[in-house]
Amino acid sequence: MTSDVAVIAGAGLGLSASLARLLTKEGFRVVLAARNLGKLSTLVDETGALAVETDVADVASVENLFDVADKAGPLSLVVFNASGRARGPIADLDPESVKQALLVGAYGGFLVGQQAARRLLSRGSGSILFTGATASVKGFSGSAGFAMPKFGLRGLAQSMARELAPKNIHVAHFIVDGVIAPNEPGQNRPGQASEPDRQDRRLSPDAIAETYLAIHRQHRSAWTWELELRPWIENF
Amino acid sequence: MTSDVAVIAGAGLGLSASLARLLTKEGFRVVLAARNLGKLSTLVDETGALAVETDVADVASVENLFDVADKAGPLSLVVFNASGRARGPIADLDPESVKQALLVGAYGGFLVGQQAARRLLSRGSGSILFTGATASVKGFSGSAGFAMPKFGLRGLAQSMARELAPKNIHVAHFIVDGVIAPNEPGQNRPGQASEPDRQDRRLSPDAIAETYLAIHRQHRSAWTWELELRPWIENF
Amino acid sequence: MTSDVAVIAGAGLGLSASLARLLTKEGFRVVLAARNLGKLSTLVDETGALAVETDVADVASVENLFDVADKAGPLSLVVFNASGRARGPIADLDPESVKQALLVGAYGGFLVGQQAARRLLSRGSGSILFTGATASVKGFSGSAGFAMPKFGLRGLAQSMARELAPKNIHVAHFIVDGVIAPNEPGQNRPGQASEPDRQDRRLSPDAIAETYLAIHRQHRSAWTWELELRPWIENF
Amino acid sequence: MTSDVAVIAGAGLGLSASLARLLTKEGFRVVLAARNLGKLSTLVDETGALAVETDVADVASVENLFDVADKAGPLSLVVFNASGRARGPIADLDPESVKQALLVGAYGGFLVGQQAARRLLSRGSGSILFTGATASVKGFSGSAGFAMPKFGLRGLAQSMARELAPKNIHVAHFIVDGVIAPNEPGQNRPGQASEPDRQDRRLSPDAIAETYLAIHRQHRSAWTWELELRPWIENF
Repeated sequence: MTSDVAVIAGAGLGLSASLARLLTKEGFRVVLAARNLGKLSTLVDETGALAVETDVADVASVENLFDVADKAGPLSLVVFNASGRARGPIADLDPESVKQALLVGAYGGFLVGQQAARRLLSRGSGSILFTGATASVKGFSGSAGFAMPKFGLRGLAQSMARELAPKNIHVAHFIVDGVIAPNEPGQNRPGQASEPDRQDRRLSPDAIAETYLAIHRQHRSAWTWELELRPWIENF
Repeated sequence: MTSDVAVIAGAGLGLSASLARLLTKEGFRVVLAARNLGKLSTLVDETGALAVETDVADVASVENLFDVADKAGPLSLVVFNASGRARGPIADLDPESVKQALLVGAYGGFLVGQQAARRLLSRGSGSILFTGATASVKGFSGSAGFAMPKFGLRGLAQSMARELAPKNIHVAHFIVDGVIAPNEPGQNRPGQASEPDRQDRRLSPDAIAETYLAIHRQHRSAWTWELELRPWIENF
Repeated sequence: MTSDVAVIAGAGLGLSASLARLLTKEGFRVVLAARNLGKLSTLVDETGALAVETDVADVASVENLFDVADKAGPLSLVVFNASGRARGPIADLDPESVKQALLVGAYGGFLVGQQAARRLLSRGSGSILFTGATASVKGFSGSAGFAMPKFGLRGLAQSMARELAPKNIHVAHFIVDGVIAPNEPGQNRPGQASEPDRQDRRLSPDAIAETYLAIHRQHRSAWTWELELRPWIENF
Repeated sequence: MTSDVAVIAGAGLGLSASLARLLTKEGFRVVLAARNLGKLSTLVDETGALAVETDVADVASVENLFDVADKAGPLSLVVFNASGRARGPIADLDPESVKQALLVGAYGGFLVGQQAARRLLSRGSGSILFTGATASVKGFSGSAGFAMPKFGLRGLAQSMARELAPKNIHVAHFIVDGVIAPNEPGQNRPGQASEPDRQDRRLSPDAIAETYLAIHRQHRSAWTWELELRPWIENF
């Protein structure tokens, strides 16, 4: 029997690594897409995931990613974690950096979402999960070059949710509000509700991954399209 | 060893019954609060829950509910499902009905939330979950007498979330968008993704209950304060 | 020729006074409703407004207010400025104060809105303007007793806007974000863009009133249902 | 004495034409930026506006636009009306069209907003107004290629509002909800509240322009960052 495939685009060592571990444990065949595969070697060794060098803002590169995934088994879950940002006062931002942030963070979400939608529509089911940030719903001062792609990605996700839900494809958008903690073994694990000294003041990537999986597994009679995640002590 | 106690206020035979069954199965001692206990007798027999006659808009009655719950064991989870509504064009609404809708749907949420907060603050942990509706975020024509309490309850929940999260109390608000299906045995169970004939076009109360439990169990490093739930084919 | 009548409910010496002066200057016959008329005597002398002692949470009192207004001329504009609030941590709030805040701030808005709607529907046109606050859209810690009525009032206003706009009644909701400055002669007047020393760090009630009037005068082909107003230096 | 300059980017014959006429009448020197100047010749003749061929998604082209505007007088008001869209189901959208929609509708807003910000910061005052749509806040099915740029533009505008307001630059975002009516002489003028046969079921561009001007003229003690505009009979 073939395992379901999960593609994680924009993979790094935080949330994506936690997702890769959890999904592998739950029986998925994981495909990691990143611009630079070097940093993923330990994770690949640990999980047996496939790693595919991918530029999410390039049509051919994203098509190649999904072609590779197709060979690994039936696609069931796609997570878009890539993000682009340009920081600074509006008057000082470098236009080329802002353009790249938009192409990676919003257009890249479209390219990945489109390839995912085509395959899941063929198969008749599956989930597409987009990772947002507070900047997805709040444009802060000095943050135009981050809010623009993040708002845009949210608009994409909401439109895809409305279009694809009646076709049995679950699209959801996660507003991750706060800093994700480094993923060190033994730290910040879900269930440890009483760490001393507020070690869990940052988001545990393992804890985020648990909620992603719970949303993927929701029965279609009660689907969530959006939720936020933040540490208990985060100001909001 | 004593079981954790879960109080479900505004209990009927839909979502509250599914929650009562799921929480009982997961080892909670369930306390059901309703204005009229008659309809709950089968559920009480099935789950062994305590049922307490309660007017959520009355201070003494809500205090009595929590006094009874205190005797059942340590409080861990409180769900507020009560709701009030007055329907009709703004010019025709009966003022007394609108007042009652506000007192049950918003003030009642405050009274239950306050009693819950006092106990959970003493204990140092726990969750308070509020059930909203689409009318919590959208005031429809002819729906002033429902939007007013539901918006109000959401304001209460958001304020409580901001105040109590840093004290290790998880407050969340669920926007249930759509009609909840009758809770018939064997129907609309989570996991049955391919029912014929779109039986799952309405919200399965069992499926909603699964998400409530997942939110209650979130690690505090990644808490959700709000999410919506709707059937896959619901227009939104 | 008879002047159009404007009713201002919940009248005090800030925004309501600025509105009374501006509307009088623009030819309206102004009717002020307040629980306590004593503080309004100077304003009444200055503007020739009618003042009617009114409890906005009491059906008969609100009916009486509009009966008095009916005699003053044809109703064209109603502004609801009344507000109720209870402050403090959720565990400490006095239930009776919370109930009163809800009855004045939300139920009072309904009673005034309903009487206004009945008359404007008969006449076939007019505006109903509701004054909100940041607490209308954000529930702060310690602010449950203010967010609950303010969220509720917003739900009422949005529902009325959807219902009444197609009947040529313009309903709008103003989110006033910040502290309104005392209305001293010569201070903070619109048009004075270069006050020294940031005297205009608070909201000028005269400036707010200008925007209320501009919204009332919008052509019905391009109506606004909601907007916020805040000082240039307000953090948001 | 030199007139204040208003730049309208993305100028066509609807809202931009109404703005050009109104602003000219109010004493502004108007500069129109469009990809194709041919269609603007009548408007230019009528208003005496300058017309500058501009690609809002091209850095050099936008810089040239503002260089031309600099020579016309002191910049006071910039309106961004350009918009890009790609329509269709997510699986069928042409990636190149989606990229162009994003570059014109979001990145173009950044380039225009940045040039505007630099000049207005030097001068110490002025307004930057962005034109949005319902798609700025709601991602409809089949509308991913429009929601993405429009959400993105809103994120930009909100970030710029937060950054620039304390520097005395007023940034606002207008959600234009509905179809703008053709701008025929004598039709849909503000003030004509009783047209027969619902001629005003679409947005009058003249009426929209009145509100843009009112927002530009708001006193800085009570600025609006966002409002929507829709016809009285529009469903929302």
